[in-house]
Amino acid sequence: MKEPFFVLVRPQMGENIGAAARAMLNFGLASMRLVDPRDGWPNQRAVAMASGAAGRVLDNAVVHPTTAEAVADCTHVYATTARSRDLTKRVLTPEAAMAEAADRIAKGEKVAVLFGPERAGLENDDIALANTIVSVPVNPEFASLNLGQCVLLTAYEWRRHTVEAEPARMEFAGTEPASAVEVQKLGDHYEERLDEVGFFFPETKAAGMKRTLRNMWSRLDLTRADVQLLHGMLRQILRRRDAVERDDGQP
Amino acid sequence: MKEPFFVLVRPQMGENIGAAARAMLNFGLASMRLVDPRDGWPNQRAVAMASGAAGRVLDNAVVHPTTAEAVADCTHVYATTARSRDLTKRVLTPEAAMAEAADRIAKGEKVAVLFGPERAGLENDDIALANTIVSVPVNPEFASLNLGQCVLLTAYEWRRHTVEAEPARMEFAGTEPASAVEVQKLGDHYEERLDEVGFFFPETKAAGMKRTLRNMWSRLDLTRADVQLLHGMLRQILRRRDAVERDDGQP
Repeated sequence: MKEPFFVLVRPQMGENIGAAARAMLNFGLASMRLVDPRDGWPNQRAVAMASGAAGRVLDNAVVHPTTAEAVADCTHVYATTARSRDLTKRVLTPEAAMAEAADRIAKGEKVAVLFGPERAGLENDDIALANTIVSVPVNPEFASLNLGQCVLLTAYEWRRHTVEAEPARMEFAGTEPASAVEVQKLGDHYEERLDEVGFFFPETKAAGMKRTLRNMWSRLDLTRADVQLLHGMLRQILRRRDAVERDDGQP
Repeated sequence: MKEPFFVLVRPQMGENIGAAARAMLNFGLASMRLVDPRDGWPNQRAVAMASGAAGRVLDNAVVHPTTAEAVADCTHVYATTARSRDLTKRVLTPEAAMAEAADRIAKGEKVAVLFGPERAGLENDDIALANTIVSVPVNPEFASLNLGQCVLLTAYEWRRHTVEAEPARMEFAGTEPASAVEVQKLGDHYEERLDEVGFFFPETKAAGMKRTLRNMWSRLDLTRADVQLLHGMLRQILRRRDAVERDDGQP
């Protein structure tokens, strides 16, 4: 098992169990355990909410009568809770907890994360079974995360610490970055045509204006498609202008 | 304005607008803009879902007829979208995007984050107005984030990059860490009583066993309350045992 067990402790509404399965699977997690679900198991409302691939998370979920039994084989247990609980225990952010959980699992440990029932959250007897508390750093003046949101954020942090996501990439839709020579030729094209219409005026400022324009083209990170578009735009404007001038009877 | 505007583009269900307000406020964000909400504005279902403090986020939300007008005053616009969109654009994770947004806002920029309607997400015309795409790194085989979840994760990343959360802390419930001398005296107490009952046997292994026990006490990060409890447990066991022995008529 290369992932933590997400243990829903005494969950009440089937819909929320289904939503938790979806939230888990969104971030690649599929190992759910259930402690004494209020409406029994299996639960059709859970299945209806999960639907599709997340339904298989429910199919594979194992039900235990008590929290102690649900975590019996785990070497480290995290308990998610918002409030301070009158228990002396280490408290981690979801980020730190999932980074640590990934390390533990890589070393062969079995890890569980406890999530409490919708209304009241985990009881102190559940938390006393955990090694570490996980607390989402919410706005202290408005802390209203529900079960599904707590599962979502924890699963998100799991994936963030196990699957390398590129923090930044460039999406190229059927094109690629323009080369320097392409950008240079684009600059030549605009400079020549603008020179012809007297854009670089007065003469004393022409060199600076040209440099500003060249600098803009380089700065814009143009694609080949952009360069073609900008060439075409300029050509078409000039063609249209020439046509209008001919209509006006000018030479 | 020291935070980004979260712009819900053509949101459909009032409940989802209310849930977005709650998700934002959970992470300290209160600046919402709405583009052409399907069921008009104000929306009683949105208010019912938000309730309490999150209702004020809705009260202060500004409605715009088009996305262009909603972002007109912003110097950088992020668009959240799951799919690749046939548009050449930079793509960031929520983490990288919110870190960058925090930098921009600290420098005085105005930043908007676009969220698409529930069913279809943002249209390409909306995305073309954005400088940068934000894409949550979900499981490619199961990507089913809804509007509220997307707002939640983005708001979470905003807070993670702006409010310093302690990644790890110790929660002490009415107690504090034991000092070395307290742990040492606890070790003395156990060692003496265990010595009296012949626990450190055979003699050749006694030193090693005592070291192991001392090491355990130090490793456990005991609190003062733990130390008192462990002293009391040992005393009570000995008292009870002595009483039993007296009952048995032994000397």
